[in-house]
Amino acid sequence: MNKPQTDLGTGTRAVTRELCEWIVGVQGSDIPAEVRREGLRTFVNWMGCAVGGARHETVDRALTAIAPFAGASTSTVIGRPERLDALHAALVNGISSHVLDYDDTHLKTIIHPAGPVASALLALAETRTVSGEDFLTALILGVEIECRIGNAVYPHHYDRGWHITGTTGVFGAAAAVGKVLGLDPLRLSWAMGLAATQSSGLREMFGTMTKSFHPGRAAQNGLFSALLAEAGYDSSVRAIEAPRGFAHVMSDKQDYEEILGDLGTRWEAALNSYKPFACGIVIHPTIDGCQQIRAEIGDRVNDIRSVELSTHPLVLELTGKKTPRTGLEGKFSVYHSAATALLRGDGAPTAFTDEVVNLPEIVALRDRVTATANPACHEASVDIRITFNDGTTLEKHVERAIGSREVPLTDAQINTKFSVQSALVIGEEQTAALLARSWEAEGLADIGEVARASIPA
Amino acid sequence: MNKPQTDLGTGTRAVTRELCEWIVGVQGSDIPAEVRREGLRTFVNWMGCAVGGARHETVDRALTAIAPFAGASTSTVIGRPERLDALHAALVNGISSHVLDYDDTHLKTIIHPAGPVASALLALAETRTVSGEDFLTALILGVEIECRIGNAVYPHHYDRGWHITGTTGVFGAAAAVGKVLGLDPLRLSWAMGLAATQSSGLREMFGTMTKSFHPGRAAQNGLFSALLAEAGYDSSVRAIEAPRGFAHVMSDKQDYEEILGDLGTRWEAALNSYKPFACGIVIHPTIDGCQQIRAEIGDRVNDIRSVELSTHPLVLELTGKKTPRTGLEGKFSVYHSAATALLRGDGAPTAFTDEVVNLPEIVALRDRVTATANPACHEASVDIRITFNDGTTLEKHVERAIGSREVPLTDAQINTKFSVQSALVIGEEQTAALLARSWEAEGLADIGEVARASIPA
Repeated sequence: MNKPQTDLGTGTRAVTRELCEWIVGVQGSDIPAEVRREGLRTFVNWMGCAVGGARHETVDRALTAIAPFAGASTSTVIGRPERLDALHAALVNGISSHVLDYDDTHLKTIIHPAGPVASALLALAETRTVSGEDFLTALILGVEIECRIGNAVYPHHYDRGWHITGTTGVFGAAAAVGKVLGLDPLRLSWAMGLAATQSSGLREMFGTMTKSFHPGRAAQNGLFSALLAEAGYDSSVRAIEAPRGFAHVMSDKQDYEEILGDLGTRWEAALNSYKPFACGIVIHPTIDGCQQIRAEIGDRVNDIRSVELSTHPLVLELTGKKTPRTGLEGKFSVYHSAATALLRGDGAPTAFTDEVVNLPEIVALRDRVTATANPACHEASVDIRITFNDGTTLEKHVERAIGSREVPLTDAQINTKFSVQSALVIGEEQTAALLARSWEAEGLADIGEVARASIPA
Repeated sequence: MNKPQTDLGTGTRAVTRELCEWIVGVQGSDIPAEVRREGLRTFVNWMGCAVGGARHETVDRALTAIAPFAGASTSTVIGRPERLDALHAALVNGISSHVLDYDDTHLKTIIHPAGPVASALLALAETRTVSGEDFLTALILGVEIECRIGNAVYPHHYDRGWHITGTTGVFGAAAAVGKVLGLDPLRLSWAMGLAATQSSGLREMFGTMTKSFHPGRAAQNGLFSALLAEAGYDSSVRAIEAPRGFAHVMSDKQDYEEILGDLGTRWEAALNSYKPFACGIVIHPTIDGCQQIRAEIGDRVNDIRSVELSTHPLVLELTGKKTPRTGLEGKFSVYHSAATALLRGDGAPTAFTDEVVNLPEIVALRDRVTATANPACHEASVDIRITFNDGTTLEKHVERAIGSREVPLTDAQINTKFSVQSALVIGEEQTAALLARSWEAEGLADIGEVARASIPA
């Protein structure tokens, strides 16, 4: 099924169709155990983040806008008492899981894969029973598809200004839901066409509530794409590769081998990683290094004259906000992040509140942090140079930050991350039960049980 | 209010903010009478098209997919018994009004302006009372904004592959709804930011049900953008002009003078035109000319050996389908359109059914039509050369097709167009009442009355 097919009309490979035939044909048992295990870690990490973000004012405001228009209350809003129709639940859970910038990352593309896919799937799963096994298979396939499509256009597509989590997430959500719905290859191609034509999300929105809207809307739009296709709403069957399709219109790079090559043997879904810190991933080496320095120097953190960072150039491009005023903006400030890691040892959501971003001592140290782009620096590395008031200095090199592929979060660290953020929202007891239920996902007859376990008692 | 403002952060003009301040400040009475009149013609033409498309299977399938998720039944699905929540009604009415490719056109950009804006506004107006006067003001402003944003990026944006009705329509819908909601300039800017980040729609979808999905989704997304902003969901305030905003990411051309120049004196909304034929507007000169030839030659239409067209290059690019198999594909075939205009004198929706596209006599003549791109040919012109079986020839030059700015549809022609398509859906008697009510729109205390007058008795 994975041999090249040629569209005689144009002479190009039928990328969308070939991908859809693979998705339809692949079985859960075809997915290697270690890939399924990473899929489960992806799910557990996503659930913790969705609960952790559930009470953010971004979510409150979205729910206010949605309330008058919501349909049958079939689906759980993770970590909250409200229930919504599946389309709106997919949107809100996608927002919640990303609003703290604490979720998962496919490091080759900076896609945050779980938000669009898991939010769509779980919301649908409360309208028709889906087993944990089928859910996990579809989740892995959805993540696989969005990351492969991302690989095909990265970095050009991202450099042009597209928030790749939104633009590729909609394909992942459509593919995953289409798998669960049992769409045939033609209808799944239509779903991908409807997804392609809704692919959107601008990087200009970073630092505002609209950033987390992207994975939410990708979840909702991908879900709706699959439902429309199921109802016979047709679309292009060449949406990815056509001259006026996704890859050509939204990127100058189109590497279809990244999409179709080694399907079933190379698994991008196995390369997912989980953030130890609640902010832009490119800042993570800096926070890691500053936390290490704090552990080494103790009270001398109050005696720092200046902090010099030598970082990958993307750090300044993405997180160069010198004077963040809100918690959300703080997530895009390497200066604030260094200051809070040094003075408070913090990189969790508590480090990125409006209050902490404006604390006088944080602001004072933040203003004494400088950063230089070093093209030779790896994205997961940093060099930090501290100068104390007495003129002495200290240097710290981070070769690979915690949370990178080389230093992945252990299951225990994922549990801690989950528990710390979830307990603030639904309490420790319920958090423990939800965490246990999340790890048991694959054996459940109805994955909706996990969603409902997140509703505050 | 319309003097240049500079964003000190970047040195560029605050395009989004300045535009939003104008929208908030402008009054209905500031809009010249002739512009309001064109706005009313825009509304009447849109309503006729929405009723005319209401029973298309594209709409049936969309409604099937939506039904399980729809919310409170506040808003009319034009021309049908179903009622939906306002967000879904906006989507479906946007689809209905465009599915026959029979709606309105801003000829400078090929934007079909009414679908996104009127569908959003009217659906909302059944959730909170909006007067006909306020409705018309908002409709005109929404059309104005989408066409101005279109001008700023056309033709590059369109040439890249974007379906400009979808990509700019979402701004028009957000602006119009924001005006009715009374958003302040900041919140309206957020609405524009949320619209920008949902701007999408690929030309690859032409010839499928997904083309008409674009104005529908633009209506729904623009409406939701304004509702989110009203609820305090924030966004970028520089979504149009920022380096990673709409204009830079989705176009290589950014002419902001097209957006901000002569606001309140130059009215793009006054340049709207209405299609006499139910297909891609670039085919209209060909249909016009072929209908004229048919009127001149009578039965000799059965004696045609070949038809040669010399057209604007865009005709072949957009409508070059040689062998359409469905009615939808027929709308993108200048060959089919010439054949049906010659043999049946038809350019109405009845010329673009699956049945007519496959009639043997239509197919036989269609296959004897050839077309040549002539860069010197105006978009509203065509040269047609007929060769009869006896070797004699006939030539026809169309300088400006009916429906162009130079030969606009009269009110009477709009009425005929409305009546012919609407009567097939809701009958002649109700059509007459709906048409009368539509022309009275500006004087109504509740514009929702017009929507409800379209529900089949």
